[in-house]
Amino acid sequence: MAVYKMTEIVGTSTKSYADATQEAVKRAAKTLRNCSWFEVVEQRGTIKDGQVGEYQVKVRIGFKLED
Amino acid sequence: MAVYKMTEIVGTSTKSYADATQEAVKRAAKTLRNCSWFEVVEQRGTIKDGQVGEYQVKVRIGFKLED
Amino acid sequence: MAVYKMTEIVGTSTKSYADATQEAVKRAAKTLRNCSWFEVVEQRGTIKDGQVGEYQVKVRIGFKLED
Amino acid sequence: MAVYKMTEIVGTSTKSYADATQEAVKRAAKTLRNCSWFEVVEQRGTIKDGQVGEYQVKVRIGFKLED
Amino acid sequence: MAVYKMTEIVGTSTKSYADATQEAVKRAAKTLRNCSWFEVVEQRGTIKDGQVGEYQVKVRIGFKLED
Amino acid sequence: MAVYKMTEIVGTSTKSYADATQEAVKRAAKTLRNCSWFEVVEQRGTIKDGQVGEYQVKVRIGFKLED
Amino acid sequence: MAVYKMTEIVGTSTKSYADATQEAVKRAAKTLRNCSWFEVVEQRGTIKDGQVGEYQVKVRIGFKLED
Amino acid sequence: MAVYKMTEIVGTSTKSYADATQEAVKRAAKTLRNCSWFEVVEQRGTIKDGQVGEYQVKVRIGFKLED
Amino acid sequence: MAVYKMTEIVGTSTKSYADATQEAVKRAAKTLRNCSWFEVVEQRGTIKDGQVGEYQVKVRIGFKLED
Amino acid sequence: MAVYKMTEIVGTSTKSYADATQEAVKRAAKTLRNCSWFEVVEQRGTIKDGQVGEYQVKVRIGFKLED
Amino acid sequence: MAVYKMTEIVGTSTKSYADATQEAVKRAAKTLRNCSWFEVVEQRGTIKDGQVGEYQVKVRIGFKLED
Amino acid sequence: MAVYKMTEIVGTSTKSYADATQEAVKRAAKTLRNCSWFEVVEQRGTIKDGQVGEYQVKVRIGFKLED
Repeated sequence: MAVYKMTEIVGTSTKSYADATQEAVKRAAKTLRNCSWFEVVEQRGTIKDGQVGEYQVKVRIGFKLED
Repeated sequence: MAVYKMTEIVGTSTKSYADATQEAVKRAAKTLRNCSWFEVVEQRGTIKDGQVGEYQVKVRIGFKLED
Repeated sequence: MAVYKMTEIVGTSTKSYADATQEAVKRAAKTLRNCSWFEVVEQRGTIKDGQVGEYQVKVRIGFKLED
Repeated sequence: MAVYKMTEIVGTSTKSYADATQEAVKRAAKTLRNCSWFEVVEQRGTIKDGQVGEYQVKVRIGFKLED
Repeated sequence: MAVYKMTEIVGTSTKSYADATQEAVKRAAKTLRNCSWFEVVEQRGTIKDGQVGEYQVKVRIGFKLED
Repeated sequence: MAVYKMTEIVGTSTKSYADATQEAVKRAAKTLRNCSWFEVVEQRGTIKDGQVGEYQVKVRIGFKLED
Repeated sequence: MAVYKMTEIVGTSTKSYADATQEAVKRAAKTLRNCSWFEVVEQRGTIKDGQVGEYQVKVRIGFKLED
Repeated sequence: MAVYKMTEIVGTSTKSYADATQEAVKRAAKTLRNCSWFEVVEQRGTIKDGQVGEYQVKVRIGFKLED
Repeated sequence: MAVYKMTEIVGTSTKSYADATQEAVKRAAKTLRNCSWFEVVEQRGTIKDGQVGEYQVKVRIGFKLED
Repeated sequence: MAVYKMTEIVGTSTKSYADATQEAVKRAAKTLRNCSWFEVVEQRGTIKDGQVGEYQVKVRIGFKLED
Repeated sequence: MAVYKMTEIVGTSTKSYADATQEAVKRAAKTLRNCSWFEVVEQRGTIKDGQVGEYQVKVRIGFKLED
Repeated sequence: MAVYKMTEIVGTSTKSYADATQEAVKRAAKTLRNCSWFEVVEQRGTIKDGQVGEYQVKVRIGFKLED
């Protein structure tokens, strides 16, 4: 049966939570094969000059382990 | 006094969490009258070709029960 | 050593969770100095005419206390 | 073996949390047979003129499915 | 320094959550000395003939240990 | 768009959780305008002479911020 | 985009948690088309004559909504 | 009205979570009368020689207090 | 003093939660030395033809780091 | 197979969380044999004259049940 | 009956969690009268040169409101 | 935009939670560059001869991923 591994990544973006998620996913996929799903764990961010500086999304990414 | 019922729906979108929420809400409203609020329960998604495949938002939707 | 205070704000937007967060942050910064980060606590919203009426994001905002 | 289904209802009352629970249970029992237990999920309410407007209790109600 | 022990009790009542709590506290105090506080852990109940049968409140009760 | 602020208050009562909530709400409304909803965060209490001394309800109260 | 609905079911079994889950899933599938995944929410059970009477597994079952 | 007490037990088994639960329940029933239900709190275990050594299930067991 | 690292793995099985856990543990032990305990984080699964397709158990596995 | 029981204790200290934990453990071991591990459940404390009065740590202590 | 307000503060320290808590409490007491208890909400910190930079403890501090 | 990875480590100490955290952080920094923050996930420990044997702190450590 298939076995999966989770890795936890924090992506950041000045635009949106979706974009921060995309950044996390793209970076993980650069070094991991078979990434197949993600789960949002936490959303936070920084504040600069009275505005959102960056959106931060912590995701757990699941990928299939090869035999 | 008013009584409400909650229904749990998962919406999906290739664009954003807000759009996935919109999809869930619109679909629920097709068959339920008096939908009045939603609560986000979970955010996750799929990964395809090293990028976010779709954003998934699980929401609970509250609607007023008629007598 | 530095000490921070948290304040809890709910921002709303007809567009997205990111925008609702931005509204909360901007309003807090109008009366508080040194706002430096936020944490998303809850996401919900209203439904109007079978569509999302507004996105609501509850955030805790941290700011440095001056001596 | 027995199988049960849960339904999520929000009852409201101007008097108490117990009364709001009662309202939710009574309404559910109007359309569902075999309701046998409830679990409190959330308690909140509205404020009007500087006082509690109504108590709201969200409950999950379990009822036995017939074959 | 003082040391306390917690014990977990479920009280029941046909009237209210407060009354179910009172039942739990009174029963615990029959066999334990120095009961000093309680924390509500869970609220649920039974349904009978389409109405609340009994309210159940699970509390943790703290009491000071004697030397 | 509207922005709300949350404040966290603990009300106490010798009678019930609903009454303790009412106390918290009334006190908050003495100094805050536009209080519009509350969320129950925690329920606990003290024990005196083998009975409930007081019910304590911690609530978060939301009120609209004026521009 | 696809939209899913969740339904919450409690299955029971005298044998195991896996079997109780199977009971819940099979019952749901009798009346719902397109059931595709489940999530375990709670595990509990009854005790009879000093032994486990039945294992109870509460699951949320997701199924695709048709247009 | 009935009052119940909870006790927290960890059962272990080399076979399954259900069996570990059974061990916990049987041991509790050796010294406690009127055990009537259990709630799973945590599942964990040990690893030995690259395989599961034992499954550990922490349960809360409820039993009726006699007057 | 000893230091441990946790890794998060999802095992799958068509038989039971215990078996899915075993699969996760065995796979982790193929590439990691000193695996000594696991903690269950989540249980879910797939549904096929109206029955459980596979049980999925997400576990965190702890192993001792060598100096 | 081994079976363990958990007991919940609150230790206090004017010095630190570690010391409050130590107090809880030492007191439990005075009346319970085979205490083997503890889990921190809650940390809080009192304030006196504008400073920490005492640190309070609530722990669950596990001990092996003898046959 | 007494009513309390909670305020959320993050204290920092290069020494320990207890010390970071002390910093938070002392700072709150500079501007608030009647501080009487605290609850630990979160513990985290920064890393500098491969060592703990500072310990951060987020606490909620309760103080009695005057009439 | 920056992307961070989290790794989960358990540090141990016979002295305090702060020291156990320090052990975890120092070990992580031996093999990982750019460690910048940690989050406490769990605190537990062992008991030996009626006293705390060792304090165990599970932390998630965040470090910046290089391009």
